[in-house]
Amino acid sequence: MRQTSIITNPKKSSKIYDSVNATLLIKGGFINQEAAGIYTFLHYGKRVLDKIINIVREEMDKIGVEILMSALSPFDNWIKTERINNVDVLFKADAGNEPTRKRSDSAYILQPTHEEMVTPIVKEFVSSYKHLPVAFYQIQPKFRNEPRAKSGLLRGREFLMKDLYSFHKDANQFKQYYAKAREAYIKTFERFGFKYNQDFFVVYASGGTFSDDFSEEFQLRLDVGEDLVFRVPSTNVCYNREVAPSKAVDPEIESEQYEMKEVFGEGIIGVDELVNFLNIDIRKTIKTLIYIVNEEYPIAVAVRGDYEINEDEKLRKVLKATTIRLATEEEVKMHTGCTIGYAGILNLNPNIRLICDESIANLTNFETGANKENYHLINVNWGRDVEKPSEFYDVKVAKDGDLHPSTDERYEVFRASEIGNIFDLGTKFSESFDLTYVDEKGEKHYVHMGCYGIGVSRLMGVIVEKYHDDNGIKWPKSLAPYDIHIITIGDSDDVMDYSKQVYVDLRENGYDVLWDDRLDLSAGEKFADSDLIGIPIRIIISKKTLESGSIEIKNRQINDIYFIERANLIKQVREIYDNLL
Amino acid sequence: MRQTSIITNPKKSSKIYDSVNATLLIKGGFINQEAAGIYTFLHYGKRVLDKIINIVREEMDKIGVEILMSALSPFDNWIKTERINNVDVLFKADAGNEPTRKRSDSAYILQPTHEEMVTPIVKEFVSSYKHLPVAFYQIQPKFRNEPRAKSGLLRGREFLMKDLYSFHKDANQFKQYYAKAREAYIKTFERFGFKYNQDFFVVYASGGTFSDDFSEEFQLRLDVGEDLVFRVPSTNVCYNREVAPSKAVDPEIESEQYEMKEVFGEGIIGVDELVNFLNIDIRKTIKTLIYIVNEEYPIAVAVRGDYEINEDEKLRKVLKATTIRLATEEEVKMHTGCTIGYAGILNLNPNIRLICDESIANLTNFETGANKENYHLINVNWGRDVEKPSEFYDVKVAKDGDLHPSTDERYEVFRASEIGNIFDLGTKFSESFDLTYVDEKGEKHYVHMGCYGIGVSRLMGVIVEKYHDDNGIKWPKSLAPYDIHIITIGDSDDVMDYSKQVYVDLRENGYDVLWDDRLDLSAGEKFADSDLIGIPIRIIISKKTLESGSIEIKNRQINDIYFIERANLIKQVREIYDNLL
Repeated sequence: MRQTSIITNPKKSSKIYDSVNATLLIKGGFINQEAAGIYTFLHYGKRVLDKIINIVREEMDKIGVEILMSALSPFDNWIKTERINNVDVLFKADAGNEPTRKRSDSAYILQPTHEEMVTPIVKEFVSSYKHLPVAFYQIQPKFRNEPRAKSGLLRGREFLMKDLYSFHKDANQFKQYYAKAREAYIKTFERFGFKYNQDFFVVYASGGTFSDDFSEEFQLRLDVGEDLVFRVPSTNVCYNREVAPSKAVDPEIESEQYEMKEVFGEGIIGVDELVNFLNIDIRKTIKTLIYIVNEEYPIAVAVRGDYEINEDEKLRKVLKATTIRLATEEEVKMHTGCTIGYAGILNLNPNIRLICDESIANLTNFETGANKENYHLINVNWGRDVEKPSEFYDVKVAKDGDLHPSTDERYEVFRASEIGNIFDLGTKFSESFDLTYVDEKGEKHYVHMGCYGIGVSRLMGVIVEKYHDDNGIKWPKSLAPYDIHIITIGDSDDVMDYSKQVYVDLRENGYDVLWDDRLDLSAGEKFADSDLIGIPIRIIISKKTLESGSIEIKNRQINDIYFIERANLIKQVREIYDNLL
Repeated sequence: MRQTSIITNPKKSSKIYDSVNATLLIKGGFINQEAAGIYTFLHYGKRVLDKIINIVREEMDKIGVEILMSALSPFDNWIKTERINNVDVLFKADAGNEPTRKRSDSAYILQPTHEEMVTPIVKEFVSSYKHLPVAFYQIQPKFRNEPRAKSGLLRGREFLMKDLYSFHKDANQFKQYYAKAREAYIKTFERFGFKYNQDFFVVYASGGTFSDDFSEEFQLRLDVGEDLVFRVPSTNVCYNREVAPSKAVDPEIESEQYEMKEVFGEGIIGVDELVNFLNIDIRKTIKTLIYIVNEEYPIAVAVRGDYEINEDEKLRKVLKATTIRLATEEEVKMHTGCTIGYAGILNLNPNIRLICDESIANLTNFETGANKENYHLINVNWGRDVEKPSEFYDVKVAKDGDLHPSTDERYEVFRASEIGNIFDLGTKFSESFDLTYVDEKGEKHYVHMGCYGIGVSRLMGVIVEKYHDDNGIKWPKSLAPYDIHIITIGDSDDVMDYSKQVYVDLRENGYDVLWDDRLDLSAGEKFADSDLIGIPIRIIISKKTLESGSIEIKNRQINDIYFIERANLIKQVREIYDNLL
C-alpha cells in the first residue's frame, strides 16, 4: 500500500490518553475514539484485527464450527436465565425516549455475552446423544455498559470477542473436549509470538457463579496488567490472586514466653495504628473480624495482621455458605460486647464459631483484641493463655512472599493481563432453556456446557502495552499491519523509481509492504511516524542509497540498524524477517 | 466437511415463513430466527455470507480502504445532523428501564447507517485538497427498528451492510469517482453470477432527501421483487417507478365532437364508480385534485382517470415546492364550491393555478367534474368548451404500457429487488460536522460526499428468491456454501472407503466438498436434504456405483443427471463445474 493513498495521521496526535495503548493506537491512526470505551478501527487497526482474527479462526476451526449470531435478543431470553437482574452491564435497545421513542413494541438486549442466544439455537438442533459433543464459535462485537470504560482497548463498551460454546453429554465428555480447547488456546497464543510459560500462562481463577471448580485464564505477563499471578516455579502451576492457595512465612518463633498484658488503647483500631502504638512486628498481630453467615449466625475469623480475608473464594467455600458479610457495628457490639476493633480470640463468646487462618497457628507472644472496650492483649501464647483452636484454614488473600502450600516453594508473583478464559458452565443454561438430550437408554438429561473466550480487540491493546517503547509500537510479525515499511527520502526520479522497484520486488516475494511515498514530510517526520506505527522491518531509500549501493534496514523490534548490499536485499530481508518475534 | 461433524437439520423444519427465502434458509439450516427481522447465521449461512463478503471486499479494495466502525455512537452526532428526529427507525441503547436501568450516564444511537460516524472520523484526518479524494468502506451490522420487519432476510432489524463513503473537493471530483464506483458495483454483481442488463440493471431512483438529482439503484430482476422497473429497450436506461418519465398512449381521437352535457350523479365520486355509471372509457375521464403548496396556496392538478399523481418526485419538482399535500374536504369546498369528487377543469376558480398532466392533452369528448355539487360534464372538448391550458407536464405515476417520452418506445416493465445503491450526499453531512478542506488558493470549502451501499445479508435472501425450485435452493457457484455434495448411500466398508477417497480427491483438486456421511438417514431423506441445501453439484456413491463403475452426478442448477465413468470423475466434474452459473 502506498501511504499517499490512505489517510494515516490524525490531527489530534499530541493528545495523551489514559493508557499507552490508547495513546499510541490513536496517534498512529490505528483506531479512533468515538466515546468512552467505543472505538473505530481504521486502516492499520483493521489489518491488525484481521490478523488476530485469522489466527484465532484457523485454530478454532479445528475444534468448532463458526456461526454469526445477532447482537439483539428478545428480553425473554434474559428473563429465563434471570440474568436480566444480575448482569449490571446490560444495554437495552429500543425505540428510545423522546424524541426518538415512537414505538414500544420492540425492545431488545444487546448481548454482552451470547449464552442466552446460543443455548436456544442449539435446542433447535440437538435432541440425541448422537448430536453431542458439538461446538459453535463466533467472532463479533459484544456490548457492555461498563461503568468505567478505560484503558483504551482493554475495557470497552463495544468490543470484539471470539466466544466458543461447547455442548456435552456430561462432565466427563466436557473434560475431554476442554483439554482439546485448552491446547487450541495455547497454539493460538503461540502463533501470536508469545512463548508458553514464559510470556503467557494458564492460570487458575474463580469459576464464577456457575461452578465451584476453578476456571482457567490465559494471562500475558505485563507490568501494567490488572491481574496478579502466583506461579509455582517447579510446576508452572499458576493462580490468579483471588484463588491462590497461600502459606504465610512465619515470623521467628521466640523461645521465651513473655507475660501476657492488657494494654489500654482507646481509639486504637486499625492494624497500622496498632503496630505503631505498640511498636510490634505486624506479623505478631491478629485481626479478628465478625461475619454474618447466610444472614443466620455470626462467626469470628482471625488472620495475621498483615493479611486480608479472602471472603468470596476461600472463607465462603470453607463455610459452604451462600452469603457472608461483615457484621455491622451494632452486630459486633452485640456479639463481642465492644466496638469494632477490639474483637479478639481470647474471651470470645463461646457460642461464636472461630475460624482461624493458618497464618496465626505458629505465632508466639502475639497481640489480639481483648473483647473488651479499648483493650488489646499482648504477649499472648497458644496453650498458656488460650487453647489452640480446632479450625485452621487458608482463608486469606495471597500476597507476594507467600509459599505454595503443597510444595513449600515461594511463589513467583507478577502482574499480567487476561487474554483468554475457559469456563465450565455446567447445566446452568441448559436448565434455563430446557436444553436436553436423550441418552442410549432413552433417558433425558440436561446438556453440559462450556464457554471459551478471547477478547480479540482487547488483545490488540494488550499487545501494544507489552510491545512498545517511547517512540511507538513494536508489533510481533504475525500481527503487524504490514511486514515491511519502505521509507523514501527525497523525490528525485531515480530515488522514486528505485523505491518502487523495491516495493514491487518485496511484494512479489510475498511480503505485505507499506511504502511511505509522501513528498511533503521531512525525513525526521517519516522516521518518527514509522517508529510510531511499528512495522517490524524498515527499509530506507534515499539519494545516498543509490550512491553508496548500500541500503539501510532497521529491525524495529530491537531497534538494530544494518547496511546491506542492494543485490542482497531480498535475501537479507528474508533472514531478518525469519528471525523476528 | 463431513456432515456428521456439524448439526444441520433443525427440528422445526415443517414451519412455513412469510417468504421463500426465510422458509428455505431456516429449513435448510442456513439461518435461525431470533426475533422478527433478527437472524443468526449458522454454518451454511455463514459460509454463503463469507463468499458474498469476500467478493464485495475484493472489489471495494480497488476503490477504497476498509475500516470497522462502532455500532454505538453518541446522541450528539445525530443531533448535529438533525436526523435524530427524522429517521424513524433509530434504536437507542442505554442501561434500559427497570429492572435493568441502573445508570443513565450512557445512552447511544445504534447506527442504522454510518454517515453520522464516518464524517467526524474523516474530519480528524482531512484538512487539505491534497487529502482528497478518499474513500472508506465498512462491512458490518446495521440496526433499524423497522415497524414491519418481513420477508426473511429482505427487510431486517439487524442486518449486514457494506457501505462505502467517498469524500471529494467538489461535484466534479465526486462524479469522476462515482463512475469508478459504478463500474466496481457492476463487476461485483457480475462475480455473483448475474448478467448485467439481463439479470441486473442500473436503475434511476429518487435522490432522496439530499439531492434533486437521481440516485442509482442496482436492481435484480425478480418476480416477487418489491420494486417496479421501467426499462427503455433500445438504450437499457432503467427507471424505478417512482421517477420513470411517462408518456401515456392516447385513446383514439374521435373526429366528431358530441354535445357537452351535465350529468347528475349524486354520490358518484371514485373513478371506477364513475366509469360504470357513465359507461365510458376510463381513458376519457379526467381526475382533478386540489393540493395545498408550501401550506400557502391551492392548485388544481388534472390527470387522466387511469393514472395517479406522482406527488413527491414529479409534481413537487415541477412546482419547485418544499411541501405539497392534498387539500382537506373543507379546503376543497372553499376553493371549488363543492365536495371532493366534483372538482374539474371547467368553471374552475380562475385564481387557482391549473397543472395538467400530458395524458389529457389530446383527449376528445372527455369527462370532467363540473365544480358543481353532484354534477359531472361529459363530451367536453378542448377549444370548444374550455380553453386549452398553458401548463402541461408529466406529473403522473408511470404504469405498464407507457412510452418513454424521449424515444417513444414502450417500456419493458418488470419487478425487481434492490441489491445496491449509490447516493450523492452533496455537502449535507460535511456542513453538519463542519468537514472542510483548504484548496490550492487557501480557500475553505465543504467536502462533497457520496455513499454506496450493498445489503450483504439481504443479498443472500434475494438470491434465494431468485434461484430456487419447489425442492429447495439452487445456489450460483460463486455463492454456494460448498461446491460439491457427496451423498453416500449405505454403510458398507467399501462404499464408505470409496466415498472418502472421492472426498479427498475432490478436495485436493481445490473443491469445497460437503460429504453426507450420515448413517441414520434414508437415501430419500438425504436427496431431499441435498435439494434443499442446493449445492450445485451432487455426486451419489452407493453399492451400485461400485458394481457398475459408473457414478451418478446431478447438476442441481438445472436438475440434470449424468452417469460418468469412475476414472473420468475429476475431469467430468471440472467440466460440469466450469459450465455452471
